[in-house]
Amino acid sequence: MDSHFIGQLIEAVGKKYVLHTPEDLAVYSYDGTFAESLPDVVVLPATTEQVSQIVKLAATARVPVVPRGMGSGMAAGSIPFKGGIVISLTRMNHILEIDTENATVRTEAGVVTADLQAAVEKIGFFYPPDPSSIRHSTIGGNIACNAGGPRCLKYGVTGDYVLGLTVVLADGRILKTGGKPIKDVTGYDLNGLFTGSEGTLGLITEALLRLVAKPRYARTALAEFASLVDASRTVNAILLAGILPAALELMDQTAIVCIEEALHLGLNTDVEASLIIETDGADEQTVLREIEAAARICQESGAQSVKLAGDESERASLWKARRSMSPSLARKAPNKLGEDITVPRSAIPEVIKRLRAISAKHGLPVVIFGHAGDGNLHPNILFDKRQPEQWQKAEQMVAEIFEAALAVGGTLSGEHGVGMLKRPYMERALGSISIDVQRHIKQALDPLNILNPGKIFPA
Amino acid sequence: MDSHFIGQLIEAVGKKYVLHTPEDLAVYSYDGTFAESLPDVVVLPATTEQVSQIVKLAATARVPVVPRGMGSGMAAGSIPFKGGIVISLTRMNHILEIDTENATVRTEAGVVTADLQAAVEKIGFFYPPDPSSIRHSTIGGNIACNAGGPRCLKYGVTGDYVLGLTVVLADGRILKTGGKPIKDVTGYDLNGLFTGSEGTLGLITEALLRLVAKPRYARTALAEFASLVDASRTVNAILLAGILPAALELMDQTAIVCIEEALHLGLNTDVEASLIIETDGADEQTVLREIEAAARICQESGAQSVKLAGDESERASLWKARRSMSPSLARKAPNKLGEDITVPRSAIPEVIKRLRAISAKHGLPVVIFGHAGDGNLHPNILFDKRQPEQWQKAEQMVAEIFEAALAVGGTLSGEHGVGMLKRPYMERALGSISIDVQRHIKQALDPLNILNPGKIFPA
Repeated sequence: MDSHFIGQLIEAVGKKYVLHTPEDLAVYSYDGTFAESLPDVVVLPATTEQVSQIVKLAATARVPVVPRGMGSGMAAGSIPFKGGIVISLTRMNHILEIDTENATVRTEAGVVTADLQAAVEKIGFFYPPDPSSIRHSTIGGNIACNAGGPRCLKYGVTGDYVLGLTVVLADGRILKTGGKPIKDVTGYDLNGLFTGSEGTLGLITEALLRLVAKPRYARTALAEFASLVDASRTVNAILLAGILPAALELMDQTAIVCIEEALHLGLNTDVEASLIIETDGADEQTVLREIEAAARICQESGAQSVKLAGDESERASLWKARRSMSPSLARKAPNKLGEDITVPRSAIPEVIKRLRAISAKHGLPVVIFGHAGDGNLHPNILFDKRQPEQWQKAEQMVAEIFEAALAVGGTLSGEHGVGMLKRPYMERALGSISIDVQRHIKQALDPLNILNPGKIFPA
Repeated sequence: MDSHFIGQLIEAVGKKYVLHTPEDLAVYSYDGTFAESLPDVVVLPATTEQVSQIVKLAATARVPVVPRGMGSGMAAGSIPFKGGIVISLTRMNHILEIDTENATVRTEAGVVTADLQAAVEKIGFFYPPDPSSIRHSTIGGNIACNAGGPRCLKYGVTGDYVLGLTVVLADGRILKTGGKPIKDVTGYDLNGLFTGSEGTLGLITEALLRLVAKPRYARTALAEFASLVDASRTVNAILLAGILPAALELMDQTAIVCIEEALHLGLNTDVEASLIIETDGADEQTVLREIEAAARICQESGAQSVKLAGDESERASLWKARRSMSPSLARKAPNKLGEDITVPRSAIPEVIKRLRAISAKHGLPVVIFGHAGDGNLHPNILFDKRQPEQWQKAEQMVAEIFEAALAVGGTLSGEHGVGMLKRPYMERALGSISIDVQRHIKQALDPLNILNPGKIFPA
């Protein structure tokens, strides 16, 4: 990257915020995956106008621009495989306005999602989307990937909360979409188009998000099932009874064994699956009635045992199992590769059967857990990357996991996005016409292909 | 339209389904507005493949294609102002599959929405979106306009139920989007892009829709407020208390007077506003507790009276007021012009003040009602179209109503769409950069501009 260009970047944002030593660049070369690639330069703008200036410089020089939040992505979406400029939005970490009358929050993209949640919860509001990365991922990254989480069954995904965006376009122009009105059909749904576009259509620098009232009560139950098929049918039965739990999480036997070995919580490891069910809301009795109704349905659907948390500490201990999933996996193998398939709810037993067969075929454990109410499963392959044949097997297994999801009417990603890693499977998943339509949209909005190139689309 | 071209259309769909006599064409020249324009030919295809063939012929001949459901649109979106082919999708009126395990329905675009609802309700499911036109509008038209309705406060708008679409593109190719998985971030959100695009990006021929469990109980209340500001604040107070009513409808004094004069229901006409509040759900006690809590909030917020419907017949009579709004208006004046602005909830009192000033300035009544929880108001101008100066005034008032909405941070449409009528206000509402981005998308997907030309975009 020539020094004249670096000089222009420094002019735009200040010397302190343009990084280009090898050590600095290395920090921005990876994310939550195994992939890495060095940028040519990293820029840390403080305002939308600075982002606009950087993108204008990049467009003139035809240099790739890769937006980045906290780098916690699970699909290598923020890794600069073609070099160029990484624009880190972490300095844009201010909450700009909480409008209590309209229940909205206006925020810069670099705010960590948990910080945003804490700020609104302090005054009785609630921003529901809760990806596992919530304590370190940014709201901008969440929007770029349309992140989900356990609570999304009841409350919807990130995109369901986006009322408006500030987006720096590929030519540096600043687009403002949406506004405070809840309903808006004035023109195309640009909020929806930019949400989940993984930085390939524009850089999200600010967002206006919808809030809801903070639920005042929550009740949690753990149901253990000898049969995975029964557990899966229970998920449908609960939803069809008109109960919409705040969470409806499934762990298969591999996951339960894994947690029990790590934590000794007294979980029954002799069951095919467990469900963690949580109801929440504004009214204590209603929340209780709902969890009791859900528990009843579990029993009627063949649960071996159903435990209702009696108080907050029992509730915390039930969630401890689910939340310690990742650390428990780390105990079992040096590496894990977590996928994010989503299938029709009815296909959960079939896809789990197929995932087990993949595990058996390759001789590497696959631990399965996820958001059963949404059909969104996270099969985690456990392996040792230092063993080249295990790494090779893991990569082959990922391909077979995607194939299994597609075979039962599912798709590649429920909340992680496509990034670089799932590109080879996109045409198989969506068909060539869909890919072509999406390419036309990409080309219309980024004709020079400078925005996060090499992502989403098959090579 | 030359006879060779007509012959090709007949070859595609059969002689019976190609209409081109003046009497036949007249039937397809209007919608729910005052606008009209004749097509050159009307074609009634029976399958997606036939739609594809028609569009291919149109693309070759560079003839406009205007999709049409039941012609109940409120923005002249389905009127063929540039002539060409009207493709009526009313023969594609089959429900293809109700998947009870996954709670989805696959349907052709020409199914009337109320018929779809009845079919799924028969087996315990619920398709919530409920535009006023529900008994005669089609699901395809609802998706093309992203239609709303009173229940959308709790349940979301049409787009929130779209899991997948079959779309005939501008070159006749058939695109399939989405699928049965509830969560899906695999590529750009094409469901969202085509929903609400008013036939300008593709023709929706089939849809896969999400269903929910049918609520088993509903309770309704009517609250009368001496002060409109109090009524408006009450809306916020109810939502902030964590109560999400199935409906939260506002009628201002002009609307109450209008209904009372027509129906003699015993409504107090000496109040500035009334709210109709409904809660619903799977659990009788919960639904009751919620309506009682909402009623309490109304009282605490200054309601002059709050009536809770004791039984189903009292409930029906409360809804009668809201539902007889349109016929009541017809009694007052030969014509009405209904708008569809949406504003931040906090701005409802201010925008109503402005609407009243517009009414006073021009000397024509403006009746105001709408979905207060969403900030979506329907100001209806009452006038006599036979009096040219009244028609002129009404058109001027529409411009001022949009100006009032924009001035308080609102926008042009919450559920009707832009169509032809709101085009002049689009640039003012969205800004030139947004219009430019949308034009680029339109051009990318319809380079010949044959799909519903002259809609959405400013001339």
